[in-house]
Amino acid sequence: MNDRPQTPLLDQVVWPSDLRTLKPEQLRQLADELRQEVIAAVGVTGGHLGSGLGVVELTTAIHYVFDTPQDKLVWDVGHQCYPHKILTGRRDRIRTLRMGGGLSGFTKRAESEYDPFGAAHSSTSISAALGFAVANKMQDRPGKGIAVIGDGAMSAGMAYEAMNNARAAGNRLVVILNDNDMSIAPPVGGLSAYLARLVSSREFLGLRDLAKRLARKLPRPLHNAARKTDEFARGMAMGGTLFEELGFYYVGPVDGHNLDQLIPVLENVRDAAEGPCLVHVVTQKGKGYGPAEAAADKYHGVQKFDVITGTQAKAPPGPPSYTNVFAQALIAEAQRDPKVCAITAAMPSGTGLDKFELAFPDRTFDVGIAEQHAVTFAAGLAAEGMRPFCAIYSTFLQRAYDQVVHDVAIQNLPVRFAIDRAGLVGADGSTHAGSFDVTYLATLPNMVVMAAADEAELVHMVHTCAVHDSGPIAVRYPRGNGTGVDMPTVPEALPIGKGRTLREGRQVAILSLGTRLEEALKAAEVLEAKGLTTTVADLRFAKPLDEALIRKLLTSHDIAVTIEEGAIGGLGAHVLTLASDLGLIDNGLKLRTMRLPDIFQDQDKPEKQYADARLDADAIVDTVLTALRHNSVGTEARA
Amino acid sequence: MNDRPQTPLLDQVVWPSDLRTLKPEQLRQLADELRQEVIAAVGVTGGHLGSGLGVVELTTAIHYVFDTPQDKLVWDVGHQCYPHKILTGRRDRIRTLRMGGGLSGFTKRAESEYDPFGAAHSSTSISAALGFAVANKMQDRPGKGIAVIGDGAMSAGMAYEAMNNARAAGNRLVVILNDNDMSIAPPVGGLSAYLARLVSSREFLGLRDLAKRLARKLPRPLHNAARKTDEFARGMAMGGTLFEELGFYYVGPVDGHNLDQLIPVLENVRDAAEGPCLVHVVTQKGKGYGPAEAAADKYHGVQKFDVITGTQAKAPPGPPSYTNVFAQALIAEAQRDPKVCAITAAMPSGTGLDKFELAFPDRTFDVGIAEQHAVTFAAGLAAEGMRPFCAIYSTFLQRAYDQVVHDVAIQNLPVRFAIDRAGLVGADGSTHAGSFDVTYLATLPNMVVMAAADEAELVHMVHTCAVHDSGPIAVRYPRGNGTGVDMPTVPEALPIGKGRTLREGRQVAILSLGTRLEEALKAAEVLEAKGLTTTVADLRFAKPLDEALIRKLLTSHDIAVTIEEGAIGGLGAHVLTLASDLGLIDNGLKLRTMRLPDIFQDQDKPEKQYADARLDADAIVDTVLTALRHNSVGTEARA
Repeated sequence: MNDRPQTPLLDQVVWPSDLRTLKPEQLRQLADELRQEVIAAVGVTGGHLGSGLGVVELTTAIHYVFDTPQDKLVWDVGHQCYPHKILTGRRDRIRTLRMGGGLSGFTKRAESEYDPFGAAHSSTSISAALGFAVANKMQDRPGKGIAVIGDGAMSAGMAYEAMNNARAAGNRLVVILNDNDMSIAPPVGGLSAYLARLVSSREFLGLRDLAKRLARKLPRPLHNAARKTDEFARGMAMGGTLFEELGFYYVGPVDGHNLDQLIPVLENVRDAAEGPCLVHVVTQKGKGYGPAEAAADKYHGVQKFDVITGTQAKAPPGPPSYTNVFAQALIAEAQRDPKVCAITAAMPSGTGLDKFELAFPDRTFDVGIAEQHAVTFAAGLAAEGMRPFCAIYSTFLQRAYDQVVHDVAIQNLPVRFAIDRAGLVGADGSTHAGSFDVTYLATLPNMVVMAAADEAELVHMVHTCAVHDSGPIAVRYPRGNGTGVDMPTVPEALPIGKGRTLREGRQVAILSLGTRLEEALKAAEVLEAKGLTTTVADLRFAKPLDEALIRKLLTSHDIAVTIEEGAIGGLGAHVLTLASDLGLIDNGLKLRTMRLPDIFQDQDKPEKQYADARLDADAIVDTVLTALRHNSVGTEARA
Repeated sequence: MNDRPQTPLLDQVVWPSDLRTLKPEQLRQLADELRQEVIAAVGVTGGHLGSGLGVVELTTAIHYVFDTPQDKLVWDVGHQCYPHKILTGRRDRIRTLRMGGGLSGFTKRAESEYDPFGAAHSSTSISAALGFAVANKMQDRPGKGIAVIGDGAMSAGMAYEAMNNARAAGNRLVVILNDNDMSIAPPVGGLSAYLARLVSSREFLGLRDLAKRLARKLPRPLHNAARKTDEFARGMAMGGTLFEELGFYYVGPVDGHNLDQLIPVLENVRDAAEGPCLVHVVTQKGKGYGPAEAAADKYHGVQKFDVITGTQAKAPPGPPSYTNVFAQALIAEAQRDPKVCAITAAMPSGTGLDKFELAFPDRTFDVGIAEQHAVTFAAGLAAEGMRPFCAIYSTFLQRAYDQVVHDVAIQNLPVRFAIDRAGLVGADGSTHAGSFDVTYLATLPNMVVMAAADEAELVHMVHTCAVHDSGPIAVRYPRGNGTGVDMPTVPEALPIGKGRTLREGRQVAILSLGTRLEEALKAAEVLEAKGLTTTVADLRFAKPLDEALIRKLLTSHDIAVTIEEGAIGGLGAHVLTLASDLGLIDNGLKLRTMRLPDIFQDQDKPEKQYADARLDADAIVDTVLTALRHNSVGTEARA
């Protein structure tokens, strides 16, 4: 369907060194060809399109001007790294993006020396680039640190912490602020308003140009005065720049699609004796591809699509996504209860809160990429009687762990955590996997931790969160679609710390947490066919555990297996600890815990990832049969 | 030794409502008496002195002007809350500060309605105050949110995230920036330089006053122009204020010890129709107590002291502190290896890096209160060949959890984590306990997690970190002093994932991690006296586990007990999981895991806290004996 574009100039460029042999006037054509190649490739693979299209010229200019890979280039979040991958020896694999065994959708150290730092969570790039810059300075080696960071990512405290420390790098640090005024969702907060003023202050630009032209005509001794005039003009229109106040030399705004502007500015910055520098580049997300420019989300993340029409492949019809079920359930809660409100950290559509916001704009808070603030803000709301839901992906909640401990759990405040993308997440790979939340949450006193086994359960659990006023409570659920179960018309408040039994047997007990339940039920069928009657329980709660149910299951079956979509330290560890506390293991207990393996798994289809992780029905059956064969104390290879 | 001061006016003030009956001209005397009472009380209890003395007038003015507790006052970090506690009904218990059963050294919700939010970790106050403000706004109730935050705390990204969202509060939010230019250590970074410029810009203040005086004389239509003049004057001298660029109405700088300035400014801010407001108050840490004013650290945290002389009680002579042992060991590593460098997040003396900095100023990085940046900066340094040690308290490393996962562990970069204050910490209580690090770190692939059993072990482990280049590695050690063991002259590189056996027996095996080893050895003596020969092993590594040693110990003794200074999900859970994986529990295994209880423990003496937690020698003996008596499957009360 999608033909490969004609790219005669790009065909000559495998590495940045090839790029640097081109004449400046050839770069426009190269950028155009690079843009066509990005569009064609993402048409085949799906992935992040708009961000990459916005930085085609910037990518070209950076590799043309700077000495990569000796200069360390760190792309913040990495959504925009596809053109970079094409120009750095990976064009031959660009149509494997985000597939099993293919290129990562983010930068990745293992993939290329041109990826000195993997960045998939937002706002890490300045800290990392500063590390590179300082390490090279300390070791007396050449090499700058270059961070390219979007305006949305600047709302995260971490970026600000790094800026506040940038002076340690001297002139080794270059921060390129890629201001497209549209990261994933429209940006929020004081900073983005500030950036908008910065860009729109045409009077300022006029005044500044005037001052500069004046300065050129002045004799040397008046240089300082002229510089003051420049600052003065700026101050008059803008009140200075925030970045200068933090110690940066600020350059900009620069048109990020105009190579004739970009190249000389970057050359000046490269050769600047002072530093650190911040180059404010204004780009357009989705630039150069009509359907992307026209779309509200600028084709931030897309399915495979037809390059000519822009039509994206539709997901096959099926059960609703967990995200959507959560959104509808929360809307229903908010209709019943005026104290229910919702908080997202710059992920309104990813978390489904865009739908909630349509219904309850005054009860929706998008705080920007600011998970730390989101959680403590929610704690304040809860302390004053509101019922806040923090909807944050499992992997991003790691950003707010101290706030969960210190502001929520210690104070036992009823903040509700809606943890999307729990477990393995498919194409986004290890950086986005939600592997650790059960472990890091269930270790905290006062915390209630639930996992939804299907979309109907999620509805009940959202309601359970809403009515649980005595302390913090979390519900986790995976990326992707539900199983198609009947949806409840009225949600139930589940009894805290109680599981449910779905089928009963006598030999095998499977204790499931989360959506592995489906595989557990499949495994039970297989085991029954082999003559092993099997109980399947959905524990629902990782904390508090259903002690009575677990005791009964462990003591009335030949073997018990726990299964969860999480790493060591979670459900299995808690069940084992309970069994040990109760003395249930003293006289022999066949109990196995199935969990994510002790590796960071690369991207692949989720069902393939879970098969690789040995967390599917086959693996359950294997685990049971292997354990049953194991009759003496000694080594047993984990199934 | 320390007499109670004469405080006739303060004696009439139990609650802020009493304070509000005073005349403005009485407040100076009240503040003076309050200051004397703080000095006298902390002389008895020890604790944070300098911070409280710096805000005596501010505390008085806030409670005088604002309608606490309806207006929600949040003291950032809470070091400075002692005068606040005295004025809010807790003077009668002020001499129990930080003692078991006494007042907390921080604000605490359970203690008073005047403490709407517990704050003991830095930089949470603006987020929380914003939550209060918005919740009251949504519920149509009166009540502002007031955050008092130090300049040091402003270096944390979280404070910036909150500021970036402040506009949601309208005029309900008041942020009081308590600028003492000296939080715990001298502040670092661009922001503090900026604040210093702000305060020192006398020309600016002069210009501004001029502009204001001008404005008063102008007719109405020129009001706007005059306002511009004001901004203009400010812009000329200062480049505007960063806070205004984030959407605040900025007021200041104000002399924080001059009640005649403070009261009207706060009244204006209270009654302002616009908002949010930021009041920039300049104070002097240690104000009004000569010895504190003269000391380099302004008596930030003190032992009991003589009020007349300022002489602090000395700790009895004894073994060196773990902090100090770490510092000396790291200095020795840096002498051998020019790639060793060290990073602290505003805790140079708390972590011992002040000593390291004296020896290696160019290899020491104090990044301010910015743990997130610290860890990712270290990841960048490590990626470029340095050997960075991040020295961060266990409880504060929670602030950087996502960076540990995403920037360090996933990329398998050799960042060294020196985790001080692991386990229970005594007077600082639950907010500062290092309870969760083994759980949240050992669940991560690629991570090596060690705990030092004594100060000699710490020296070996620091060396082990230094030479471990293949991935991340952490060593945890407690607050307080070592056990007085002989110190090694040459540190050893410990084999990764190998424990050691200290004494051998046949009936009981105690598997210890960390400094509970001493109690384990004591318990072994008691058990031997009862005829139970006891093996004591120091596992050294929570990850990777010493599988061979653990298998041997579990299978060759009648009972095994793990003990650790951490919550569920750590060593005990990992040992149980290993035993289950290996099938060791299939045929019966008496194994108990001793760990911190599932509560947040209040402050007390550490030995008392560990006794309460049932993690001392007595508890080990009880656990062993109870388990040995337990011979049938059934309930066993945990010893």
